[in-house]
Amino acid sequence: MSILVVGSVALDTVKTPFGQAPEVLGGSATYFAAAASFFADVRLVAVVGEDFPDHHLEFLRARTVDLRGLQRVPGRTFRWAGEYGFDLNEARTLDTQLNVFADFAPKIPEEYRDSALVFLANIDPDLQREVLRQVRRPALVAADTMNYWIAGKGDSLRQTLRLVDTLLINDAETRQLAGEGNLVQAARKILTWGPRALVIKRGEYGALMFNGGDWFAAPALPLEVIRDPTGAGDCFAGGFIGYLANTMNFEDAGVRKAMIMGSVMASFNVEAFSLDRLRSLTYADIETRYRVFKRLAHFEAL
Amino acid sequence: MSILVVGSVALDTVKTPFGQAPEVLGGSATYFAAAASFFADVRLVAVVGEDFPDHHLEFLRARTVDLRGLQRVPGRTFRWAGEYGFDLNEARTLDTQLNVFADFAPKIPEEYRDSALVFLANIDPDLQREVLRQVRRPALVAADTMNYWIAGKGDSLRQTLRLVDTLLINDAETRQLAGEGNLVQAARKILTWGPRALVIKRGEYGALMFNGGDWFAAPALPLEVIRDPTGAGDCFAGGFIGYLANTMNFEDAGVRKAMIMGSVMASFNVEAFSLDRLRSLTYADIETRYRVFKRLAHFEAL
Repeated sequence: MSILVVGSVALDTVKTPFGQAPEVLGGSATYFAAAASFFADVRLVAVVGEDFPDHHLEFLRARTVDLRGLQRVPGRTFRWAGEYGFDLNEARTLDTQLNVFADFAPKIPEEYRDSALVFLANIDPDLQREVLRQVRRPALVAADTMNYWIAGKGDSLRQTLRLVDTLLINDAETRQLAGEGNLVQAARKILTWGPRALVIKRGEYGALMFNGGDWFAAPALPLEVIRDPTGAGDCFAGGFIGYLANTMNFEDAGVRKAMIMGSVMASFNVEAFSLDRLRSLTYADIETRYRVFKRLAHFEAL
Repeated sequence: MSILVVGSVALDTVKTPFGQAPEVLGGSATYFAAAASFFADVRLVAVVGEDFPDHHLEFLRARTVDLRGLQRVPGRTFRWAGEYGFDLNEARTLDTQLNVFADFAPKIPEEYRDSALVFLANIDPDLQREVLRQVRRPALVAADTMNYWIAGKGDSLRQTLRLVDTLLINDAETRQLAGEGNLVQAARKILTWGPRALVIKRGEYGALMFNGGDWFAAPALPLEVIRDPTGAGDCFAGGFIGYLANTMNFEDAGVRKAMIMGSVMASFNVEAFSLDRLRSLTYADIETRYRVFKRLAHFEAL
């Protein structure tokens, strides 16, 4: 089934202790779409400026991402610059230029409105609801957000959450959103606001899912080469939602496998700058790594 | 089979956001012995002062811990005071009084020298080797250490590591010991120094085992009630080594189950101050929680 993703397409300038990449392909919707495209049809809604290089569009088209909803408008493309320290845990933002993204008003093309799954990447919660007003009864709505919206647009975010089935955020955001230091209590509280499932992304420590009183812990793969963590969370979401769209199995066992697929896609993405690892990735690579995760987490019953 | 543990027995004063506990039972050997006693015979070597309350000894005896190696000498018992913030991640040490522990010279009673498994809790690496000189060919030697010894007694620690099969430390200590930021590279390096397996404790994020090129990730259980993390690492070691002593299965599948038993014991211990949760714990509780961990981590093959 098809996935609609709405978010940012950007040009990133990234520095890590292992090198730097100036003006490379980035953006939450880009990472999500590229990762999800290994599993399902992806329809993208975003905005770029006149300066956006054609070869980036060709890459996304080659990954069969539907770009009919990508607006190209006068002005410059959204730019983000960030730097990571040796622990690679958190980016320090050096520069943000919203440019054409400042006036982004997501317009869902008629042919996208029947998308079975919708992923609302990290954008203004007002715009997230604006997207949902334009689609017809999707089977699953998933959303991301960030500390900026939690702090600055809490009421709007709470309205959006009423319409969301699965919320994907990190652990600090979980605690901040709930106003609650204990992760279990925070998760419980958030599920009273709308979402049926909460996915808590924890970077090198993996991800947790809280789902109807039940927890699932997906490990992260210890990696010898981590070059650039940018986009790992969106690749996780892409693998997770992509796999759900592929199987349409929303039962517990299916969602657990989807969590591992998210972890698999994130683990590949951090191995190179920008989306470069995804350029050479094959489905066989993905299946092999899923098996590595199975081996990583497996233990027998008593 | 029997386990010999050598480490500290202490009186702790602990403050957390959920309360405080003055002059309660603590110490690395205590936590380890109490946790391991659910699985195997434990023989304890440590030192206390004349002021050490008898009822603590009675508790350990009731848990069938062999105390013939516990020296009681003139002076005051080792005392530690610490405080945890809301994240409960790291203790801030408020006070350390070594007292009788300052002159601790572990003397292994003749009847302990045939112990099949030895756990060297976090003490001076010189003393850890002193213990190993007094035992006869144990089947498994496991050890803990800390940043203090890594920084101040690196050479001695490296000598001890040559004699150790399994090293249990936290992730910061792993990086510090190896002088290497990447955890995989750090683990690989440490295994060239002696240990055949490295267990990396990560608190609320679980634990990793690196073993002959193979990784295993044990999750931590998200807990609604965490009152006092003191001793979690030693309870993990107690469950881990205790289960190995019980089964004497050092194959991969057995060691993975032992890692989960370590996680089970740590998850119980943090639910109350001091060792209080272990006082009422039954083996049926342990089996039930093992099944909860199985459910927490389980996902199907592709």
